[in-house]
This record gives sequence, C-alpha cells and structure tokens, in this order.
Amino acid sequence: MGSDGRPVPDVAGSVLAAREHKDITLILIGDEPRIADELSKHDVAGLDINIRHAAQEISMTDKPSEVIKGKPESSIHVGIRMVRNGEADAFVTAGNTGAAMGIAMLRRVGLGRIPGVKRPALGAVFPIKTRPFLIDGGANADCRPEQLLQFGIMGSLYIERVAGIPNPRVGLMSNGSEEGKGNALIREAHELLKASDLNFVGNIEPKDFANGDVEVAVTDGFTGNIIIKASEAIASYIKDRLREEIDASKRATVGALFARNAFKAVADDANADVVGGVPLLGVNGVVVIAHGGSSERAIWQAIDKARLAVEHKIVDAIRDGLA
Amino acid sequence: MGSDGRPVPDVAGSVLAAREHKDITLILIGDEPRIADELSKHDVAGLDINIRHAAQEISMTDKPSEVIKGKPESSIHVGIRMVRNGEADAFVTAGNTGAAMGIAMLRRVGLGRIPGVKRPALGAVFPIKTRPFLIDGGANADCRPEQLLQFGIMGSLYIERVAGIPNPRVGLMSNGSEEGKGNALIREAHELLKASDLNFVGNIEPKDFANGDVEVAVTDGFTGNIIIKASEAIASYIKDRLREEIDASKRATVGALFARNAFKAVADDANADVVGGVPLLGVNGVVVIAHGGSSERAIWQAIDKARLAVEHKIVDAIRDGLA
Repeated sequence: MGSDGRPVPDVAGSVLAAREHKDITLILIGDEPRIADELSKHDVAGLDINIRHAAQEISMTDKPSEVIKGKPESSIHVGIRMVRNGEADAFVTAGNTGAAMGIAMLRRVGLGRIPGVKRPALGAVFPIKTRPFLIDGGANADCRPEQLLQFGIMGSLYIERVAGIPNPRVGLMSNGSEEGKGNALIREAHELLKASDLNFVGNIEPKDFANGDVEVAVTDGFTGNIIIKASEAIASYIKDRLREEIDASKRATVGALFARNAFKAVADDANADVVGGVPLLGVNGVVVIAHGGSSERAIWQAIDKARLAVEHKIVDAIRDGLA
Repeated sequence: MGSDGRPVPDVAGSVLAAREHKDITLILIGDEPRIADELSKHDVAGLDINIRHAAQEISMTDKPSEVIKGKPESSIHVGIRMVRNGEADAFVTAGNTGAAMGIAMLRRVGLGRIPGVKRPALGAVFPIKTRPFLIDGGANADCRPEQLLQFGIMGSLYIERVAGIPNPRVGLMSNGSEEGKGNALIREAHELLKASDLNFVGNIEPKDFANGDVEVAVTDGFTGNIIIKASEAIASYIKDRLREEIDASKRATVGALFARNAFKAVADDANADVVGGVPLLGVNGVVVIAHGGSSERAIWQAIDKARLAVEHKIVDAIRDGLA
C-alpha cells in the first residue's frame, strides 16, 4: 500500500514476483479490504500471498518526523516490525521514502543500525546500460569522511554478494579524477578509502561512472541525489526536445517511425522500472525502497532485490565486513 | 594561445569576433611568430587585430599553484596584467582554467577581487534551450553560506545587465524544492538568500533548472561542477546509445536519415560552442574562460561574452551591488 497508484501496482507486482519464485511467501500490508479486493482480480492459484492489515496510512506529504511517532500502525511501521520480530525476512515499500528510512533506522520503532554502522545509506543503481551503482543516493545530506568510507565498504559487499562481482572497483565521485580534486570531504575520504582494503581506484567523474569504469561510486547523499536528479532532468530534456523537433516535421515523423525500435531500445534500458528499488544498506534487516511512481514491473523488481539481499545474507555480510 | 588546438581556433575565432564588431580591438597574446603565421591565413583587412608576444607557455597539465609564480611571462599572465594596467578591457582564454582563475584572483600578479567580494565564481550557462545560468560552476569546491549569497547577488547582476532580464529569479540548487531540504550549507544559505533583496524563489531541483524556472541557480562550486559533468555524461551516453541502436538496424538507419534535421536541431542547441565561455565574476576586471576544446565559434562567442560584460560595466555593477 505504498505506491502512488496503490494498491494496484503493489499487488500486481507482488503477484509477478510470487509467480517467478514460487518458494517465497509474500505478505501484503495495508488496508485489508482494499488489498483483498485488488488481489481478487489476479489468478493467485499456487501462490503464497497473504494480507496483513495496517490501520493507518502515511501520505507522500506527511512529514517523516511526525509519522514516526504519530502513525505507529502505518503499513511501513507494521512491515518493519515484522522484519524486526522475524515474521518477515525483508520489507519492500514504494511509500514515503523519508518515513521508511526514518522508521527503519530507529531502533525504538524499527530495525536500528547494524553494529558498527555510522549511517545507513541508499544504494542506487542507475538505469543506464552499464548499471552503475552509487552510494549514498540520498539518505544523508551531510556526511563525514568516515561515513563515506563505510558507504564504500557496504557498497562493495553488496555488489560482491548480490551482483556476484568479486572485489568490485570502488571510485570516489569528484569534480575531477586527479588526486587532490574535490572538496574537503572528498579529499579526506580519499585518504581513508586509499588506506582501506577496498579495490579503490581513486577519484572518478560522472562520465567514468556512466562508462561503467567502476562497480561502486561513493558519494555523500546530497551530491548523490543531485547526480540522480540532474541525470533524470537531462534525459527527460533530450527526450522532449527530440519529440518536439520530430513532431514539427512530417519527414522527421516518418523517419522516427522507421527508427522506432532504436528509440525504444534506448528508452527501455533507461527505464527506472528495470531497477525497481534501492536497498537501504546498514539497517539491521533488509529494506528496499521503490519510487512512488512505481509500475507493477518496478514493484516486482524491488521485491526481487529484497529476495537477493536475503538470499546472499547482506546484513550478515555488512556486520562481518565492518567488524 | 590557450586552446588545445592553439593557435588555430583562437585566431580564427578572434577574426570572426573582429568582423562582427569592427569597433573592437583584439590583441592576440602568445608566441608571436606562430600567431603571425596563423593570422596571415585570414583576411584581416579593416580589422583591428594586434599581437602581443608572451615568452612562456602554460600547458593543461601544469599545476596552477606552480605556474602562478613560475611562469610570469605566460600568455595568461601577460593578458591579465594588460587588464590590470588598463591596456585591455577584458581577457579571454581557453587555456588552463585553474591557472587562469588563480592568476586573475591574486592581487599580486593579477586583478584581485572586487572590494567586498569573498570569493570569485564561475557563471556557467548550460547549453540547453532554456539556457539556464548556474553560479558557481567550479571555482570554489568548499563554500560558506555567505559566499553562496554573494554568488546569488553577482549572478543576478550579471544576468540583469548582460541578458537584460530585470529582477531575475534566483533559485538555490538542492536535492528537493521544499524549504528545509538540502545539506547544512544549503539550509543556511537559504535563510540568507530569503532575507536578501534578491528575487529569491527558494530551493530548486535540477529539473526546475533545466525547465528554465529560474534565471540564476546558486550552488557551491563542487556541486555546480558535478551537475555540469553529470549532464554532459548523460547527454553523451544517450547520443552514443542512440547511434549504436540506429547503426545496428538498416531500417533505423534509413529512418534516422529522414529525421536528420531533428537530430541536428537538438544537437545544435546542446552545442557548447554556442555558449563559448564563462565569466569569472568577482575579480577586479573582465575575465572569460573558455573550454580547452573550444572551436573557432566557441572562441568567438567567448570574446562576445567579454565584450558584453565590458559594455554593461559588470565590474562596476558588482562593486556597487555589494557595497
């Protein structure tokens, strides 16, 4: 019950995930009658899908700080408590990101941090062909150098386990690839990363990231979020401008029709639905956060991300890695 | 003598600028024989173009900190000294950006700052249709809130004077448009900008910037430079992917041929050559810095930016505006 179109894509995506992996149990959390009604529209024969009622609802405009205390029976609270109590292995939501992060991070109401973790972080996969992974994608606007080192460690462990890439290359996002470039945070974090056991390749620029020159790009959550949003803005600008120019000419319209499959291929690999959701790494349990505008395919992929994180014991890996 | 292809585009661009505005005098600075040889390939009848010899050359790999002291007869030093001594009204270079900024900012060898200016900043125009203006584009990796306020004031004065837009809208680049979003720097700068006389519209995200919702976007130089580089990386990625998909299909190749003008129109308005160069605002004289890879068109436009800044007395405007 988290997405903007709830419960439609949430339920449909869950059915897709359950069909793909018949050995998993899915528990849909939220207003029971609405979920049951939506679920009745699907063929769920042979699938293990249950419903858990949640009496409160968090909206996208609710302030995270207020709902953490104020709505203890929201689907986010209920779901995260289930992970804490061992009733579930992972929690997936397309709801209010700030609320989900806040509730998950707080030990009192949620999961708290894995021992040793300074700050949990969002591990964002970019929807481009090289699928670069960036951490932190937006959980921490203000960071200290030691936190960036931990983001590198958590990101490296995640990519090694979940993507199966041994000893992934880790880069530090900067405004220039030369050592010494960057702001004070980057220069200090550079030293820490260099002295670590990570496969640290040094500073990288956005173009190195887009080219897939590293598997893990480390950044503070402010810069990471700005990079994601600037990339989306430029991609959307180019798409709109091309459409505008093509629509303005009959000749170009015919041409674009012939080149349709090429456009579709590029749009498809830039489709955020393929990525699904981003893991909140460093909390004491598996939490995957999907976009509010998630489609059923995005929900399905977000659930699959959670499944992989459980299967590869990412929480244990981070605990051991930081110890 | 600054561009990667020096002196070819530098000389050709200067000739174009001199032809467009016959009332300006252009002084080409660098190795005299090489410049004279290059200039002899052009028809300069009726144009006021002179050469000033500079005995040293700064390479792109020279460290700015070393050349400031170590190469006092470089073309950058000579040109900036001419502005200081009143022998020239403005200096334009496509050479080493760090060296140009360093030499211009230092009072001892260059221009120093306009009284009241804490840190000079680069005012970058984005090569997209809405031509959004961002300050600082990369001069200051670490900033304090008062510096961001000054970037807003300098940017607003520049756009008002040079682009002729009265009372330009000023936004603060952040990871969310709501007040309270951003890191500590952004939150403090927000308060200062809100309390100023600027036409401050609040926090903006990259998409608002791309849409042209403000005339001036304020950011620290690290974030500004990352936004520029991430935008370039994504635009280049999309272009390469489209070409790859089109080349892979005969049908799409034919289609793209028909739609050629549409592609060209989008590429043209995203061409950095149209922008030319970025002003270094806050130094005590007009300095415009162009990309190392500048074409003759880019050099021409950079010179035109310098001409406009002189004509609109931007140095006086900043001095008065900050007083």
